[in-house]
Amino acid sequence: MKVYLDNAATTRMDPDVVSFIRPFFEDVFGNPASIHCYGREAMKHVEEARSNLANCINASENEIVFTSGGTESDNLAILGIARSLKHKGKHIITSKIEHPAVLEACKQLEKEGYNVTYLPVSRDGVVNVDRLNETIRKETILVSIMHVNNETGSIQPIEEIGKVCRDNDVLFHTDAVQSFGKLNIDVKRMNIDLLSASAHKFHGPKGIGMLYVRDGLYLHPIMYGGHHEMGLRPGTLNVPGILGMMKAAEIAYKELDKTHAHIKRLSKKVVDGILGSIPESYLNSPSPTDVDEGRDNRYTRWYPGVVNIRFSFIEGESLMLLLDKEGIACSTGSACASGSLEPSHVLLAMGLRPEQAHGSLRFSMSRFTSIDEIDYLLEKLPACVERLRKISPFKNAEALDRFIRKHHQRYKT
Amino acid sequence: MKVYLDNAATTRMDPDVVSFIRPFFEDVFGNPASIHCYGREAMKHVEEARSNLANCINASENEIVFTSGGTESDNLAILGIARSLKHKGKHIITSKIEHPAVLEACKQLEKEGYNVTYLPVSRDGVVNVDRLNETIRKETILVSIMHVNNETGSIQPIEEIGKVCRDNDVLFHTDAVQSFGKLNIDVKRMNIDLLSASAHKFHGPKGIGMLYVRDGLYLHPIMYGGHHEMGLRPGTLNVPGILGMMKAAEIAYKELDKTHAHIKRLSKKVVDGILGSIPESYLNSPSPTDVDEGRDNRYTRWYPGVVNIRFSFIEGESLMLLLDKEGIACSTGSACASGSLEPSHVLLAMGLRPEQAHGSLRFSMSRFTSIDEIDYLLEKLPACVERLRKISPFKNAEALDRFIRKHHQRYKT
Repeated sequence: MKVYLDNAATTRMDPDVVSFIRPFFEDVFGNPASIHCYGREAMKHVEEARSNLANCINASENEIVFTSGGTESDNLAILGIARSLKHKGKHIITSKIEHPAVLEACKQLEKEGYNVTYLPVSRDGVVNVDRLNETIRKETILVSIMHVNNETGSIQPIEEIGKVCRDNDVLFHTDAVQSFGKLNIDVKRMNIDLLSASAHKFHGPKGIGMLYVRDGLYLHPIMYGGHHEMGLRPGTLNVPGILGMMKAAEIAYKELDKTHAHIKRLSKKVVDGILGSIPESYLNSPSPTDVDEGRDNRYTRWYPGVVNIRFSFIEGESLMLLLDKEGIACSTGSACASGSLEPSHVLLAMGLRPEQAHGSLRFSMSRFTSIDEIDYLLEKLPACVERLRKISPFKNAEALDRFIRKHHQRYKT
Repeated sequence: MKVYLDNAATTRMDPDVVSFIRPFFEDVFGNPASIHCYGREAMKHVEEARSNLANCINASENEIVFTSGGTESDNLAILGIARSLKHKGKHIITSKIEHPAVLEACKQLEKEGYNVTYLPVSRDGVVNVDRLNETIRKETILVSIMHVNNETGSIQPIEEIGKVCRDNDVLFHTDAVQSFGKLNIDVKRMNIDLLSASAHKFHGPKGIGMLYVRDGLYLHPIMYGGHHEMGLRPGTLNVPGILGMMKAAEIAYKELDKTHAHIKRLSKKVVDGILGSIPESYLNSPSPTDVDEGRDNRYTRWYPGVVNIRFSFIEGESLMLLLDKEGIACSTGSACASGSLEPSHVLLAMGLRPEQAHGSLRFSMSRFTSIDEIDYLLEKLPACVERLRKISPFKNAEALDRFIRKHHQRYKT
């Protein structure tokens, strides 16, 4: 049996999306920038996609810029705003748990003379809005806080963040790569000025993303060329990609409630199954019973499609590889950091010790994940953990202590 | 009848390429950065594509960086080298006939304090190598000259340019977006350090391109994020796009001689047919009999798939729209400049007057273009030209003179 539980890294394309984009390879193949009928036909479809995608987040079609994916969207938003507003101020606020596409763009800005504040998060991986409010100063031009964290599924309070930003006249960007197509988003109600999304995270094609840019905002582009996308993003439009993103979003939002209910069921089974059968296993993701007790919507701080669990005394990477041999795909964190031996910056920011971060695995589900697959995971996982614990260098307190001391030295900054 | 003669803007995807990439949407859908079997399987195919694409230009697989297309490749090459070598010098040489992706990147560098020389071209649209040699100075860090011009098909002497650059220890980038898959390219023999290509120009998918970066060269990235592509280009790899580019290149290079012979035949028919039947029509593209007389290869200075012809006394845009009504798609120049009322910068650089540039059309062919389509063009075109000339404001010398004086004022810089 093959079980794919790494949907936060990428998803299988929906067969309906694959069929839908087929005509855009061979039939409607014109360059939308051309003004003859081939070009106009292509542009008509691109504009329909732009309009439909804008509707998904209560934006207007002139507020959507197509990009090559989430990384480019994040970079265009952050570098673009910072470089265009440098006369106004050079302070940016983000959080310690952002995706590398946000963090590394901020690091680049530091090299260009900007000041960046990286907000800490709670044990549940959530940014504190009061702390954000106190951090905003006169020179602050941009706040970039993600919607759903890619490693733990924690949901940031972006509506409150948006309000604080609007009240302080600071622009607000949110990396919604893990939430677009999975949660409801309303850029007006949430006071969002810029929002990044990527199609391959919700069963659309790879290589296509979008950036919502609130009407009236000016960004400095990061690439230069033709006058496409209102001068913000040159290059021939990826028509099949754009149409694929539209179709994938349409399906995702049509099925949103049904999918969410399905994923909550799967998620509960994963969490209860693992924590109930494997000693010393702990949920890193915000527990719904902790934070949502008594609320109607039990999942206001956690997107349950991303389950992050730590197993004491073992290395996540080894466990992931053992599971891989059983046909189960999961991950130790962001795919963008795969192969790196560093512990997850997200888990460290949540206060986990390095060896706890190293001992964590992410299981991420989609609407294509079945209960049978979860049953298979729960059947195979305990023996894998058991096997690793038998040979673990951390099976006694002394070895574990040595590891901690060695790593604390390295990561205590 | 529908006739597509705008293959320099974009091409219809080859049905074999469409079938080939299909499994990479739903079956081999993993993120190549993931280390479980789904990721490894995807990465295996990506690396095969990288190796095959490198072979097309006699490069090594570690010298290929995948991008979102030609614009990003050009930007990464030019901005990346300039920003990483600024300690060495801040002078860049390019030509007046480059694509906007090169010219606008250079304009951005001027804003960052770099000096850019824009080399003039001959009446045939070709850069003079001696002139280039004289222009190189101590502070010159990069020469960027395209291989095949997108508006006229003129081939630049990149092998000689490569030699001059190597002799002067200056890096050489060539925008090969219009030549990759159409002409033989050998980066070693031609002393090319950086080369841009884009799949949708040779019947591959839109949204995918590559940059060849000679081993040992360091570029400053233009986007920041994960460690993909040797740190040069973050973002989840567009696996179907990459595989589509590989397959399209494989077909293109396998069929190169056959395609070239076919396109030469079509091209000759277009040129002879138009020039023979329409008075006061002139070839803007370098005429093969002018420059290649007596040589074995009659097309050393012209890629015949791009035919640029001017028609006195009329506006190219009006003619293009009349042809569009007859089902014939062609263009007035680069699709990236469509809708702009400016005359082509390429034709002006070749010494054409503004009204001559305005009166020019580009017909660009591919291996999918048939002789019947050319026959149809030749059947419809004369009446369209005739009709426009009857209502042309330039039909008498006085009106033409007024137009020229007015425009010379504006464009004489």
